[in-house]
Amino acid sequence: MTDLSGLIEELLPLLGPEGVLTGDAVGNRAAGIWRDDRIAAPVIFRPGNTEQVAAVMRACSARGQSVVTHGGLTGLAEGAIAGPEDAVLSTERLRRIEAVDPVNRVMRVQAGVQLSVAQQAASDCGLLLALDLGARGSCTLGGNAATNAGGNNVLRYGMAREQILGLEVVLADGTVMSSMNTMLKNNAGYDLRQWFVGSEGTLGIITRLVMRLRPLPVSRETALLACSDMGQVANLLSTLDAGLAGKLTAFELMWRDYYRLAAAGNPPLTDSYPYYVLVEASGNDLSADQELFVALLQSALEQNCAAEVLVCKSESERDAIWQLRESVELTLEGGNAIIFDVSLPLSCMETYVMDVERLLRDAWQDSFDLWVFGHAGDGNLHLVVAAGEVNPSDRQRIERCVYEPLQAVNGSVSAEHGIGLEKKPWLHLCRNETEVAVMRRIKQALDPHNILNPGRIFDLDVPA
Amino acid sequence: MTDLSGLIEELLPLLGPEGVLTGDAVGNRAAGIWRDDRIAAPVIFRPGNTEQVAAVMRACSARGQSVVTHGGLTGLAEGAIAGPEDAVLSTERLRRIEAVDPVNRVMRVQAGVQLSVAQQAASDCGLLLALDLGARGSCTLGGNAATNAGGNNVLRYGMAREQILGLEVVLADGTVMSSMNTMLKNNAGYDLRQWFVGSEGTLGIITRLVMRLRPLPVSRETALLACSDMGQVANLLSTLDAGLAGKLTAFELMWRDYYRLAAAGNPPLTDSYPYYVLVEASGNDLSADQELFVALLQSALEQNCAAEVLVCKSESERDAIWQLRESVELTLEGGNAIIFDVSLPLSCMETYVMDVERLLRDAWQDSFDLWVFGHAGDGNLHLVVAAGEVNPSDRQRIERCVYEPLQAVNGSVSAEHGIGLEKKPWLHLCRNETEVAVMRRIKQALDPHNILNPGRIFDLDVPA
Repeated sequence: MTDLSGLIEELLPLLGPEGVLTGDAVGNRAAGIWRDDRIAAPVIFRPGNTEQVAAVMRACSARGQSVVTHGGLTGLAEGAIAGPEDAVLSTERLRRIEAVDPVNRVMRVQAGVQLSVAQQAASDCGLLLALDLGARGSCTLGGNAATNAGGNNVLRYGMAREQILGLEVVLADGTVMSSMNTMLKNNAGYDLRQWFVGSEGTLGIITRLVMRLRPLPVSRETALLACSDMGQVANLLSTLDAGLAGKLTAFELMWRDYYRLAAAGNPPLTDSYPYYVLVEASGNDLSADQELFVALLQSALEQNCAAEVLVCKSESERDAIWQLRESVELTLEGGNAIIFDVSLPLSCMETYVMDVERLLRDAWQDSFDLWVFGHAGDGNLHLVVAAGEVNPSDRQRIERCVYEPLQAVNGSVSAEHGIGLEKKPWLHLCRNETEVAVMRRIKQALDPHNILNPGRIFDLDVPA
Repeated sequence: MTDLSGLIEELLPLLGPEGVLTGDAVGNRAAGIWRDDRIAAPVIFRPGNTEQVAAVMRACSARGQSVVTHGGLTGLAEGAIAGPEDAVLSTERLRRIEAVDPVNRVMRVQAGVQLSVAQQAASDCGLLLALDLGARGSCTLGGNAATNAGGNNVLRYGMAREQILGLEVVLADGTVMSSMNTMLKNNAGYDLRQWFVGSEGTLGIITRLVMRLRPLPVSRETALLACSDMGQVANLLSTLDAGLAGKLTAFELMWRDYYRLAAAGNPPLTDSYPYYVLVEASGNDLSADQELFVALLQSALEQNCAAEVLVCKSESERDAIWQLRESVELTLEGGNAIIFDVSLPLSCMETYVMDVERLLRDAWQDSFDLWVFGHAGDGNLHLVVAAGEVNPSDRQRIERCVYEPLQAVNGSVSAEHGIGLEKKPWLHLCRNETEVAVMRRIKQALDPHNILNPGRIFDLDVPA
């Protein structure tokens, strides 16, 4: 452990008392907003501006001090879990929305701004910040960028990466790299922001961002469909995606077991089908959009892309349908459930889920539950496995059942949550040695002393 | 100059005679498809598969031999111009479309496949490869990726970057990095493809790609509008982008002087307005789309977002309108015209163009022409300057008039063409020293002997 007291002594005059937390002020904080354990690091630095972030990094760099960056602590892959040897740098005081520019449709913000606050600021100007996820009230734009967050709008607008036009980043040695591009097109050399988005705090600390804004849609049409097999699901997706011509916003797939659990005895469509799909479209013409939506669903039924359909006719019907999709907490009620986030080609989903189920059955016979749902339009599935109280080796066995079948279908062990510490043991299933070797080279080039979130995603030294 | 004869001797048995061109077979080839000069390199290697690309790079790496990669040679920034000391590696024999997968909507291709060939293969399966540019019949997907090509569909679908899901890259030392992801979401570690897209051949040689495919639109609506000032143009863009809800495909702006030249005495709308806009939308419902389009334009007129409008009622009317926009060759008829490709915020375009005009007038009084048009919806303008026969120092002076005013508006000296050799002297106007220093670090990490397209984009040694 490096000499943290010397570091604190050096930085306290620069950051002031509100900029340096120690003792209980750290130890009383939860390690993550959905976690019971506490932050294990001895210090949290809370810089109030970019120059202070740079000062922290210069001091840490000079001492070889490891730094874990904290945004809203909503991540699910243990990318921001700090140990007793780490210093934490929190962006919680970097909360300024610097500018919203409705003509050029961009927003300039500091990294600690919460997603929901930024969404509101955009919508106050009649524009849409097209990033949205469940943790919107807690997560920060800096964290969204660092993890390339996904969420509810990916099908139409892309991941966080596609919403970010420019970044300011503090590098490991304290250098401030300002790359605050505001334009959709800029091919003047390497696209630097792309290297930092999704790097999970390992290459630099994002301090400011330029976010892209879009027109705010006014209409919203929602329906629930039941499908008899995965062929219907695939046809439904391509029919709706083509027919809605850019307006398809959600295509959420639920397997029967999950649907039954979520419907809690009161299913809006009979619960005997293997698949249920929530679809949503949004546009700019209330009556024309509704007419098109209903006609398309009708024709989807006629073309045998679905077996049953229910179009929402009111806000409360819409809420009820979304409630189904978002009842993940019901799967957690027994305790001990593990939530997985994977991606794989649509055409492989049916077989993949059957494989996972078979492997779980081999290991746990009938004493487990498997619930499956997800953003199928993006190739992203969430699986929840509950097999009673599990020890670490049981947990690893469950992870193996879920992750290993991904290898054969070129899937990914992380669709949107990142790798962090949690998925590091499984990265090799979806990234080959050469890919990881190239990642290591970049890490070494930008963080030669390995002080930024060290050991997250991959270890720097190749294991023997 | 390194010993190329030894290199050729080593590689000839591996690549076979069709894989190694020397002498007139090289010297008779044009250096670019729009250039008069010849390829100056003494050898072109034409590997027939990835393993042969790797073999070429292993041999070149061992000798410190510089390698310039050739795709379709349609680039306009001198990124692929080889000198007598370079070896050329051409992807022209890597022409295989390996698979089109309509269910998962991806296409797997080798890097030398021409864009138009890939577009056709997608459309044969009822799908759209959403990358399109004028050079489609000559440019290759590998080149499109290496330069992050832009073109006609960026407003709706994004740059080449957004159409590429996976890559296979041969690194400087001959290592083959396969990262052939097929999914929209994959957050398993750094997103490697992002580093190679747009790196202009300086970080690796792209040998295979996974391209994203989309639904093929069926309707196409086109109109020409005249605007009285730039405020109207900005309002028109936001009105149409919102109203068309994802279906706006083109928003092409023409300044009056260009419009007059292109209309050649027969303007479809009177030629007294300062700005003309070509708009196009594409969707999936022939009659509904047309109705919406006409209604929106009508309401745009009523809301004073435009002064006049002409909706195309036939293919020939549409062709005539597009012909206006694509009459760039008329600006070149006097010879000596220089075409520029810049980007800047929409709100700054009017002042910027006036600044450029003023600077040109200071230097050339009235003996110059300036024509301006571009993909204004993407912030991308093309300027054509003709000032008679110019020597290199005159040319530099013209470049200064166009590029220097970009600095004040945070614009870019390259929207879509890249930097190559041509724009290297101006990169500092839109990238700060820290950004370029970070680019250099990455270059050194991935190509430590500086053999891949050396000296393009930036020099590796910081100039004294």
